[in-house]
Amino acid sequence: MDSREEANHYEEDTDLENVGEYDDTKEEEKLWSSMSERNMSIRQPLLRNRTNNTSQIAVIGANVCPIESLDYEIIENELFKQDWRSRKKVQIIQYVFLKWGFSLLIGLGTGLVGFFSNIAVENIAGFKLLLTNDLMVKEKYVKAFLAFAGCNIGLATVAGALCAYVAPAAAGSGIPEVKAYLNGVDAPSILAPSTLIVKIFGSVLGVSAGFVVGKEGPMVHTGACIANLLGQGGSRKYGLTWNWLRYFKNDRDRRDLITCGAAAGVAAAFRAPVGGVLFALEEAASWWRSALLWRTFFTTAVVAIVLRTFIQYCWTGKCGLFGEGGLIMYDISAAELTTYGFYDLLAVVFLGVIGGVLGSFYNYCVDKVLRTYSIINEKGPSFRVLLVIIISVLTTCCAFFLPWATKCTPCPSNPEITCPTIGESGNYKSFQCPPGYYNDLASLFLNTNDDAIRNLFSARVTREFQISSLLIFFTTVYGLGIITYGIAVPAGLFIPVILAGSVYGRLVGRIFESMSALDTGLFSLLGAASFLGGTMRMTVSLCVILLELTNNLLLLPLVMITLLISKTVADCFNKGVYEQIVKLKGLPFMDAHAAPYMKHFMAGDVVSGPLITFSGVERVGNIVHALQSTGHNGFPVIDEPPFSDAPELFGLVLRSHLLVLLKAKYFSSARALSGRDILKKFSQLDFAKPGTGKGLTLEDITISDEEMEMYIDLHPITNASPYTVVETTSLAKAQVLFRQLGLRHMCVVPKSQGRPPIVGILTRHDFMDEHILGLYPHIKPHK
Amino acid sequence: MDSREEANHYEEDTDLENVGEYDDTKEEEKLWSSMSERNMSIRQPLLRNRTNNTSQIAVIGANVCPIESLDYEIIENELFKQDWRSRKKVQIIQYVFLKWGFSLLIGLGTGLVGFFSNIAVENIAGFKLLLTNDLMVKEKYVKAFLAFAGCNIGLATVAGALCAYVAPAAAGSGIPEVKAYLNGVDAPSILAPSTLIVKIFGSVLGVSAGFVVGKEGPMVHTGACIANLLGQGGSRKYGLTWNWLRYFKNDRDRRDLITCGAAAGVAAAFRAPVGGVLFALEEAASWWRSALLWRTFFTTAVVAIVLRTFIQYCWTGKCGLFGEGGLIMYDISAAELTTYGFYDLLAVVFLGVIGGVLGSFYNYCVDKVLRTYSIINEKGPSFRVLLVIIISVLTTCCAFFLPWATKCTPCPSNPEITCPTIGESGNYKSFQCPPGYYNDLASLFLNTNDDAIRNLFSARVTREFQISSLLIFFTTVYGLGIITYGIAVPAGLFIPVILAGSVYGRLVGRIFESMSALDTGLFSLLGAASFLGGTMRMTVSLCVILLELTNNLLLLPLVMITLLISKTVADCFNKGVYEQIVKLKGLPFMDAHAAPYMKHFMAGDVVSGPLITFSGVERVGNIVHALQSTGHNGFPVIDEPPFSDAPELFGLVLRSHLLVLLKAKYFSSARALSGRDILKKFSQLDFAKPGTGKGLTLEDITISDEEMEMYIDLHPITNASPYTVVETTSLAKAQVLFRQLGLRHMCVVPKSQGRPPIVGILTRHDFMDEHILGLYPHIKPHK
Repeated sequence: MDSREEANHYEEDTDLENVGEYDDTKEEEKLWSSMSERNMSIRQPLLRNRTNNTSQIAVIGANVCPIESLDYEIIENELFKQDWRSRKKVQIIQYVFLKWGFSLLIGLGTGLVGFFSNIAVENIAGFKLLLTNDLMVKEKYVKAFLAFAGCNIGLATVAGALCAYVAPAAAGSGIPEVKAYLNGVDAPSILAPSTLIVKIFGSVLGVSAGFVVGKEGPMVHTGACIANLLGQGGSRKYGLTWNWLRYFKNDRDRRDLITCGAAAGVAAAFRAPVGGVLFALEEAASWWRSALLWRTFFTTAVVAIVLRTFIQYCWTGKCGLFGEGGLIMYDISAAELTTYGFYDLLAVVFLGVIGGVLGSFYNYCVDKVLRTYSIINEKGPSFRVLLVIIISVLTTCCAFFLPWATKCTPCPSNPEITCPTIGESGNYKSFQCPPGYYNDLASLFLNTNDDAIRNLFSARVTREFQISSLLIFFTTVYGLGIITYGIAVPAGLFIPVILAGSVYGRLVGRIFESMSALDTGLFSLLGAASFLGGTMRMTVSLCVILLELTNNLLLLPLVMITLLISKTVADCFNKGVYEQIVKLKGLPFMDAHAAPYMKHFMAGDVVSGPLITFSGVERVGNIVHALQSTGHNGFPVIDEPPFSDAPELFGLVLRSHLLVLLKAKYFSSARALSGRDILKKFSQLDFAKPGTGKGLTLEDITISDEEMEMYIDLHPITNASPYTVVETTSLAKAQVLFRQLGLRHMCVVPKSQGRPPIVGILTRHDFMDEHILGLYPHIKPHK
Repeated sequence: MDSREEANHYEEDTDLENVGEYDDTKEEEKLWSSMSERNMSIRQPLLRNRTNNTSQIAVIGANVCPIESLDYEIIENELFKQDWRSRKKVQIIQYVFLKWGFSLLIGLGTGLVGFFSNIAVENIAGFKLLLTNDLMVKEKYVKAFLAFAGCNIGLATVAGALCAYVAPAAAGSGIPEVKAYLNGVDAPSILAPSTLIVKIFGSVLGVSAGFVVGKEGPMVHTGACIANLLGQGGSRKYGLTWNWLRYFKNDRDRRDLITCGAAAGVAAAFRAPVGGVLFALEEAASWWRSALLWRTFFTTAVVAIVLRTFIQYCWTGKCGLFGEGGLIMYDISAAELTTYGFYDLLAVVFLGVIGGVLGSFYNYCVDKVLRTYSIINEKGPSFRVLLVIIISVLTTCCAFFLPWATKCTPCPSNPEITCPTIGESGNYKSFQCPPGYYNDLASLFLNTNDDAIRNLFSARVTREFQISSLLIFFTTVYGLGIITYGIAVPAGLFIPVILAGSVYGRLVGRIFESMSALDTGLFSLLGAASFLGGTMRMTVSLCVILLELTNNLLLLPLVMITLLISKTVADCFNKGVYEQIVKLKGLPFMDAHAAPYMKHFMAGDVVSGPLITFSGVERVGNIVHALQSTGHNGFPVIDEPPFSDAPELFGLVLRSHLLVLLKAKYFSSARALSGRDILKKFSQLDFAKPGTGKGLTLEDITISDEEMEMYIDLHPITNASPYTVVETTSLAKAQVLFRQLGLRHMCVVPKSQGRPPIVGILTRHDFMDEHILGLYPHIKPHK
């Protein structure tokens, strides 16, 4: 033990004899006050009869669920090695084939769902809007309102009821949940089949109901659900037990599939295959590697091809009202973009700065609203449906009554333009206006969100929308967007943000009309970019998505500048909207970087107890008791005499593996090594991890009193290569190790000899700020 | 210690008493033969008085250099923590500001260099080609040849001489070197200023000389060099010692800058900002994080804007011959791409498969040629120049004489096309043909590579090139491309591959002419994609680069399919060309994944000696002796009584830090802790890592005999949180840890107690196949 000069500053600390008997609270206070000096000392870790109180539940969709970590680490136990050695070349080919086959299926599935939702939305919403329009043209205003409101509220109620009663996890965007899953947090319902079904239909109904929500976030969630369904490794229940599927019975391969699924979702939503890959890379995934880039890309390519094929089919007019609309594909190419000068750039900078401020304010409001709604949501499903109905009524009233506030605009003289447009979606709705005039607000409100965006992006007529109309529309969609997210329907955030942003951009375009040569439609696009940058804080993927949407690469520099500025400005105020929601939901998300204050701690400082260890050959009763009394998922295995000279850490055994061994009742009456027989009897497949919520539990196993006294050799199923850190390693470094390698358990080993071979186990929860700040309340984790 | 039943199979192994006295070779043989059984045992690691013989030199450019690893790990010693604590908010703002400032400068610099090289190439090559053409038109064939050959050989000789005598590291593509640097391998000359200068001018001269080389690889290297120059942390020599620059005096920040530089290079070469980012991500970088994506994207955006500005300026005609040509920007939009059917897809699949085969054969040949050339290159600079001249003569003869072999083609009747084109670059060179006719081979050969590619991609006239001409041109450029890479000029691989691929594509297009509705220009593009996929094996970045080049997103699905097929086919034969070159050059590149056979080893198995450790308070003489006698860069520091109860591992100290301490002569005569005073006297900045090759060496320090007997307290400069693995950890897991966290040294600690606290240190070289296979020659590292 070190005893340098500065040790005088904290004498008690280096007093080795007493270190085990410290008064905990007193010690901690002292600890922090002397933190700056004590870093140089090597010392015994603190007592750890503290338990980690960080709650292990989180909000999934609109429901509070228990959560669990995922096992991304390869469990290198004897069985694994045996399996690996016996693996033949044909099996590797099977695996590779299946991997690509699944990518193909995910692409096909997500592409089909994307196409189906679009057709459904276009047809349902189209029917509703045409009906309303027809009645308006016939001047039956009350009937028109009743039809419009009836459709909206009816659709909304069904969507809300599905979400509230059938699958609460399907509410909201789903992107935060997928992000958390890919970070290593699992909950039974996140990617369940019921969630998938409700997400698809709920999203279609919600969007058709005229809510200011998108189907992009839900598409990402849908893609992930489809991927998860494929990655279940078959199903005994439905007789799908193809032997090949066993390769996917682990969290690592499932993670890869779900990453592909998330990318496929974005690709399907925006018909942006490269954007989808980048989205998965930038926003969704926590771990990434080159090989995955390649597979993700394949998946999104399949999605793009599927969509293209079906859209071509629809051009023949066989898809009902699904015509030019549907999948967003804005055509800005009409705007001739040649050069831009100083004033144009000035306008873009202005746009970016204000867009960033408005974007971050959007995030702030969404956070507040979500907190309020969570109180309502907790009261029960019927309250959730009620909330949906209230918001639907509000949205309907805004959409129907606000257009009355604007003056009718005379149709433009251009003969190429049909004005007003009757019987189809278009830029010029007559609403209550006389022939030859159109209502510009109605053209925005009484349209699907996709069509409204397309109208705003349209480059042909600069003064198509009055400034007052744009202002009214902007305020309304900005507000509605904020209060709609959080109700119990699948609700994407992309479309509300793009919608508000594009109105905002068109407004700015009108302000700079005299100074800038840029088209107002282009301003609209840049406005959307600035809002996206300000709320979501992605850059590369958004940029590519916008490029793929508009199919014009010459816009790139302007879009980039806008995104960079708005993100930078918004970052000064708060975090990105998805990060914020992840935190709000209580999901224990691990950042890629350690917080700076973690440098001042050692790994041993945050270890919480009680630590339960097993012997290499352990009594069955002890194991059962340990599994009953704690919820731990990993237990250190200690080899003790006579199996070793002194106690030493053999490795780490997982709860799920112990349960399999207990279930098989492969016990021996003597305390002896029986590992070799276990190796013969079991294969790696027996220990493969089934899908979420399908694993064995302790209730599945009954063990007699006699068996309780028998022994079990844990060596073959113990991961003999767990990652370890020495207790004096700085917490920041331990965090980086934990996060980079995607661990679930990390063993903390003692520095000095002559002590038990393991100090404790760190899990994801031990790295959470709340846990650390709970232990050391005096810290201020300033940035 | 474990003593299970199967221990009988290898009795000697578990015989603890004798383990230290094993006969090494005998033991190893036995080891491998019993490998399958022994995995279950816990055992003492093997003896490690073996040294790592893996050569620590590698080929950089055309030169053999010593290499070193980079320190990407944060050295968390007391000084670091002191510095971090004292860091004020303003310093963090300085750092962030500078980080973005540097990104801006890299973008500007790379953009300017990219523009300059293009202008220079267009003007030099344009002058040469116009001169030749003029003489040909006047039927002065001999004079024309002499002028053409004189220009080519002259330019080639200058380029070769620059490369051979001034900066051998500038030869070749540079991408493998940058890839290795970003993986953690450094050599003094990789990114030196002289390399930068020669790379720029050599590349311009080489491309102008008519070699089948590109300037894309060199642009990547150039971008990285510019970034490295900025990341030097100032220069005492030139008085650039701005205090702010100190933040960049470490390998981590330099790595980020160089990643940005590599991306900027691709962006400048192809005017493809998104493609640049993806290239850096997919091919160049070994470590990546979201924040870097964002900065890289900013850099490439700056490049795009710089290029755009200058090109607009050049449209006014002020840049000499730099007109429509120059920066590649193919316009395939003339080819109306509407739908494609079964036969089109069949054609694409065929194209992809053959493209993959030809691409991998290209790699195979490049490898063989490089091996041959390395023998010539080793003989000295004059041999290198000679080789350049020989290849130049060959290229010139092919370009001038092969067009005579083809028949003259009558000009197309379309009046919009000027045919033959005289006095400018264009599709229709008259060469020796009578008026009204053109020579299609000359149109390809007597043009810059960029223009030839543009001609091949041109969609207007299907039968512009005869099949025989295409065949001749394909064979020639395929062959020339292979034999040109490896000579002592900066030589990119992109353009040769795109060139050969686009001819190949056009050929396939002619074959499928009757069956497929796709345009031959489009086939040409797909051919280029298939060759790129077959040689470089990137997918996403190539796809995006091709999209940005052609500015047509509707091509995406076809390009994707082609890339996927050709990469898959080529992967069956060999590795990607850059990976292959990295290996050939002997650069110790660490793959993201451990080789499967590593699962059978434990970390302790590959540790090589001799292990030199220091005491926490060490005698100066011991340190000096250790530094003199080994080339190690990291030494474990062991705390021993009286500073601790028993020997325990305190941490790891770096050679560079020891040298600073020795240079300052901060010794004490007593063996006591003097750390606190060191903390007062030094700041983190004193230990900051200067640029490559600028650090202190032992020769800079003279120490008297008296001083040799004094002591030095190593605690404050020792990294107290080194990453450790237990000796029994599987080597595969150790490799993943090492690679994921970007380590330079990893401590291997013993499993059992009562032994010295450290078993050895693993470095990058210990994970190389050659080292492991050297120790255990019986292993077959099958895939």
